[in-house]
Amino acid sequence: MPKTQTTKIVLAVTTLLITTVQVNAWGIQEPPDVQAIRKVLTQQVEAWNKQDLDGFMQGYWHSHELTFYSGGTTVSGWEETLGRYKKRYLGVGNEMGKLEFADLKIELLGSNAAFVRGRFNLKLSGGDQRGLFTLTFKKFADGWKIIHDHTSTSS
Amino acid sequence: MPKTQTTKIVLAVTTLLITTVQVNAWGIQEPPDVQAIRKVLTQQVEAWNKQDLDGFMQGYWHSHELTFYSGGTTVSGWEETLGRYKKRYLGVGNEMGKLEFADLKIELLGSNAAFVRGRFNLKLSGGDQRGLFTLTFKKFADGWKIIHDHTSTSS
Repeated sequence: MPKTQTTKIVLAVTTLLITTVQVNAWGIQEPPDVQAIRKVLTQQVEAWNKQDLDGFMQGYWHSHELTFYSGGTTVSGWEETLGRYKKRYLGVGNEMGKLEFADLKIELLGSNAAFVRGRFNLKLSGGDQRGLFTLTFKKFADGWKIIHDHTSTSS
Repeated sequence: MPKTQTTKIVLAVTTLLITTVQVNAWGIQEPPDVQAIRKVLTQQVEAWNKQDLDGFMQGYWHSHELTFYSGGTTVSGWEETLGRYKKRYLGVGNEMGKLEFADLKIELLGSNAAFVRGRFNLKLSGGDQRGLFTLTFKKFADGWKIIHDHTSTSS
């Protein structure tokens, strides 16, 4: 096939992806994939605030290749990431508190990948935990999932 | 155009991208884009270790949309990111030291985006600074550039 034809097809597909937008609750036009990623994050926050850690974990890729970076420490694997959350928030004397995300920037990187920048605030009885996160997302057959999470807490 | 034809073309392009690999110095087959990103990082380290902050900054997207997240603080813009580095490493009583990257994982996300996970070690006369980084890369006309950097220091 001539190269120009391939280019035209790629451009046509790209244009289609960009122009297929819907209007969200705030009247802002967002591509469906951005809406889908936003929904994953909303569901994570809702699950966390119902003390439903398993529900929260549905946002993460269920794979041993999932990675979680935080405070100089790396965790590899979905089970291991769940284990980290359990240890920190479900252990004796711990609590899950009330989670909020803010300043979300969802940016698509092609048709099957995206990255999200944002802030979190976790309201705990002993004081708030605050910080930043960067999430890499991939689109799978069962939807958008976080494949890498880099979280850093404000010092 | 029938949907199946578009699918075939996308698959053909994807296969072409995956199979066009070269062998690097260590005998490991890496796609050219991964090699190009590795080169950006190598050049950054070389520039840093020659006290060449401007050379180091060539790895970043020269845009006000560049973002740098670290320790709860966000910086937006190439100039502002340069300013942060200048303040921390070129100010009175500071030094650039010797930088090393380790455990690099370069992963392509489609044909024009990638993300990199890694560790850094900065040898300073007063002791080492260590931590993790996640970089989001995009491919521009003038090559691969970091569009977002999330760095967290080991506490």
